[in-house]
Amino acid sequence: MPVIKYEIRAGAYFDSVLLMHLQRALAGLDGIIDAGVVMATPANLDLMLQSELLPSQAEIANPEDLLIVLRAQDEHHAESALAMVDELIASRRSETHSEFRPKSLEAAMRMSPDAGFVLISVPGRYAAGVAKDALRGCRHVFLYSDNVPIEEELELKQIGKEEGLLVMGPDCGTSIVNGIGLGFANRVRRGGIGLVGAAGTGLQAVSSRIHSIGEGISHAIGTGGRDLRSEIGGITALQAINLFARDPMTKVIVLVSKPPHPEVATRLLMACQNCGKPVVVNFMGYGPPAPKMGNLYFTANFDETAEVAVRLLREGQNSQIENEAHTGSYPPGRKYVRGLFSGGSLANEALRALQSILTPVYSNIAKDDASQLTDPVRTQANTILDLGEDEFTVGRLHPMMDNDLRLRLLEQEASDPEVAVILMDLVLGEGAHPDPASEFAPAIERARRVHQVEVVVVVIGTDQDPQGLEEQRQQLSDAGARIFDNVSDAVTSISRRMVFREVEEYKRVNLDSLTATVQAINVGLETFYESLTEQGVETVQVDWKPPAGGNEQLMSILRKMRE
Amino acid sequence: MPVIKYEIRAGAYFDSVLLMHLQRALAGLDGIIDAGVVMATPANLDLMLQSELLPSQAEIANPEDLLIVLRAQDEHHAESALAMVDELIASRRSETHSEFRPKSLEAAMRMSPDAGFVLISVPGRYAAGVAKDALRGCRHVFLYSDNVPIEEELELKQIGKEEGLLVMGPDCGTSIVNGIGLGFANRVRRGGIGLVGAAGTGLQAVSSRIHSIGEGISHAIGTGGRDLRSEIGGITALQAINLFARDPMTKVIVLVSKPPHPEVATRLLMACQNCGKPVVVNFMGYGPPAPKMGNLYFTANFDETAEVAVRLLREGQNSQIENEAHTGSYPPGRKYVRGLFSGGSLANEALRALQSILTPVYSNIAKDDASQLTDPVRTQANTILDLGEDEFTVGRLHPMMDNDLRLRLLEQEASDPEVAVILMDLVLGEGAHPDPASEFAPAIERARRVHQVEVVVVVIGTDQDPQGLEEQRQQLSDAGARIFDNVSDAVTSISRRMVFREVEEYKRVNLDSLTATVQAINVGLETFYESLTEQGVETVQVDWKPPAGGNEQLMSILRKMRE
Repeated sequence: MPVIKYEIRAGAYFDSVLLMHLQRALAGLDGIIDAGVVMATPANLDLMLQSELLPSQAEIANPEDLLIVLRAQDEHHAESALAMVDELIASRRSETHSEFRPKSLEAAMRMSPDAGFVLISVPGRYAAGVAKDALRGCRHVFLYSDNVPIEEELELKQIGKEEGLLVMGPDCGTSIVNGIGLGFANRVRRGGIGLVGAAGTGLQAVSSRIHSIGEGISHAIGTGGRDLRSEIGGITALQAINLFARDPMTKVIVLVSKPPHPEVATRLLMACQNCGKPVVVNFMGYGPPAPKMGNLYFTANFDETAEVAVRLLREGQNSQIENEAHTGSYPPGRKYVRGLFSGGSLANEALRALQSILTPVYSNIAKDDASQLTDPVRTQANTILDLGEDEFTVGRLHPMMDNDLRLRLLEQEASDPEVAVILMDLVLGEGAHPDPASEFAPAIERARRVHQVEVVVVVIGTDQDPQGLEEQRQQLSDAGARIFDNVSDAVTSISRRMVFREVEEYKRVNLDSLTATVQAINVGLETFYESLTEQGVETVQVDWKPPAGGNEQLMSILRKMRE
Repeated sequence: MPVIKYEIRAGAYFDSVLLMHLQRALAGLDGIIDAGVVMATPANLDLMLQSELLPSQAEIANPEDLLIVLRAQDEHHAESALAMVDELIASRRSETHSEFRPKSLEAAMRMSPDAGFVLISVPGRYAAGVAKDALRGCRHVFLYSDNVPIEEELELKQIGKEEGLLVMGPDCGTSIVNGIGLGFANRVRRGGIGLVGAAGTGLQAVSSRIHSIGEGISHAIGTGGRDLRSEIGGITALQAINLFARDPMTKVIVLVSKPPHPEVATRLLMACQNCGKPVVVNFMGYGPPAPKMGNLYFTANFDETAEVAVRLLREGQNSQIENEAHTGSYPPGRKYVRGLFSGGSLANEALRALQSILTPVYSNIAKDDASQLTDPVRTQANTILDLGEDEFTVGRLHPMMDNDLRLRLLEQEASDPEVAVILMDLVLGEGAHPDPASEFAPAIERARRVHQVEVVVVVIGTDQDPQGLEEQRQQLSDAGARIFDNVSDAVTSISRRMVFREVEEYKRVNLDSLTATVQAINVGLETFYESLTEQGVETVQVDWKPPAGGNEQLMSILRKMRE
């Protein structure tokens, strides 16, 4: 008759590698059927319950407590296994501690003044403190720890931004620096593709695929999963893009992340647009406005991301990036785009394309409240109006048939001194106005001449349409409009001429700090120390213990004394 | 000194073509500077205000009232122009009424028994009534009218579903049937691509582009913008996909729409997966799980949609669709997929891929509340678990390092009698477990042998990884796992073997009704009558007037009397 025995060790800190080894050692003892060794968090207790390893008396354990549970053949075997716990812990510890190890990060940094990277994988509540010490010591941080509060992440990244140091993480699984994998990383050849990723296994999947199709990567910078949230604003990702823009080895940049906060996405894509290299963007689940906008290439999954990057690398696309001036093309003070669309789907494409590179953009057909126009007939900042929407067509012909409304709005928007460009569509075909260009041409000319406002027109039609595609294009073009076949080309062209909001001032990360021989300090999981050592990296392992034995109050006093 | 004069005509119905002509005629009169002729809806009043055509006294007009406003050089010219309104209306009406016109749709259907299509563009509140009459007469409906209540749309489409009739719309801008454009349509050559679109100008942009690259379309079926909402459930789109599946001329299907309701998207994509032809899907702003899943190809904008469709047509991809059996591959009753992932990004890809073809799918990393697991450690229906999430890694090694948790869950999920497949990842590389396959192989074998549960593994790694990519794959494969390089191929393969939820029973739309010579009846805008006539279509124009002069109460009595 099997029995279950347990032990709770209150508030004790144990490295999770040690917990795994302890569990395995216990499970391997004579007469033991199953063993569980966990910190007693609600999720862990629930999992223990599912494994039939949670006696109801043990449910009183707190998240800070270590819970050891054994299912054994009988009472005797259970008791003697529990009695061996301390011995098993001591023996595991002695196995791994042959060489001298500094007791603190400060000591390790003194020992290893050229170690440019500090890997941190201590429990979340201690991680930010260790990371701050590393930044104070002018080292880049690879912060594997999760469960780090977001305010602490922001504080660390702001230091990083001011000091030109990378804070990769928290909850960063993967980076590859100068050929060396930090955390979880596949062994891939070096090459011309630079990766930025807020997605850990995303970076692994993309880098593995790049390797398997025969190319390689320059560096892969993990940012942690929350870097592209609005609270953080993509600090690490922006640093990485800037690094790759300057790195001569990197010819193509890849950006992989779960969908960023929309404003952060826009900021990042603006930075990418200005970086002078092709950038392959996979925002996992983000619906891109086009497969390509200028030097930005949007992809749907990791394989496609790798394949497009390799294709661009091989085609040498980076030499083809047009370096049109991004400023000064529109008169000073004229900064907004106003879209006057007759086609709802074209308006939708334009809205999405514009939102990917400008902010804010409002519309009467916006999906999110923040972008919704409060009054559908009053434009503000950048605006896309779909004039075929229900509210405009009660007792009024559709704007494809009757140009009156758009002609009035064209004049009205052009006379707004903050407007730089008017973007519109002209849809030909059956049922549409027989000669729309003849009515728009004078209005376009007036917008250009009188108001110095550019008019960009997306013309949809065929050579067989009753209005005549070429004749319509010619009339518009003679009036001074710029003509495009599709929305994304039109928006890309507009964005090239816009005055971009200045990217915030960052202290640049020193490129040499990435291309020098990697030396590292590891604080936390032994596994990462072993991995670095196997990769030939000179690494110092810190024999880390939580300050004050994990006592929060004492820790806070110690911290204050040091500051 | 210019003066403004106005007139309100209460509750009068006027065709919007007539309103446009009246406005133009008034604006062209001697001494008139500007004119506005609109139904006095809030949006129209606001637009009039912006054009300085809204005297404050006129703001009392109701949405059902016609508002005529003139800005004139002086009182005299304004007064004499207003006096001419009735005359201008009468002269416009006499211009267009040369031939005999039936006064009702019923009369028109008797006149033209072979007219298969009724185009309806009367004001929204009358449109459903006319459409119901057309369906009663066994005609397909092209419903251009907008502002039709969604309950009425549902009622119409349910009739269409039962009778095998298409209800294209409401708010449907575009269809092309047998080479004839209904509503707004570009003139494009005929060919092997069939279009389904809940996006009007989307269909125009895609069909124009297909034409311009040298191919053509079989038919284009507009569904109206709300067809893919949950209330309607994609009735018209499903009818159209089924039509194209049976149509021998159609080799490639294109589906264009604003992002559907997630469940409707899944249902449509399931229908597309089963249609036996390649389908190019552009859900405008939908983040696809992959560029390709089986016979589904996802695109980002209209040009790419056209280009991919043409490429598939030219490659003759339809012959390559694997017609694997979709049923019976898993034991009866075993219907669910459970995903046990160590990599968050891979879990995310799997969740999105699975959600595109199965419903419901739950996850601990779902973005929407509906898909969020209530308890992250308890699976339900189809579930994707990301076991690297914070809740699982407190005092526990990451599942890439320690397989214990996944091994326990693999056994647990496999012993659930409703589970058909377990999907998992195995990520190799630095920092990861030195030989994970050796631990998973026995568990996989047990799942297969004991529980008859299939195990599908996505292996991420390179030939240089310390674990050895081939050795790991071999061990898993020897244990009976099916191995894939990426998530979307794995999910596609799973979906091929799943028992699909039956597509609801629809009465099939008769294919011949689309390929016969088009004859039509037009109720509403003259423009569409002219367009059809120019295209050589035998068309009857109904001289439509709102029933009971637009009096709602009387209309309702009349309707009851007829039923």
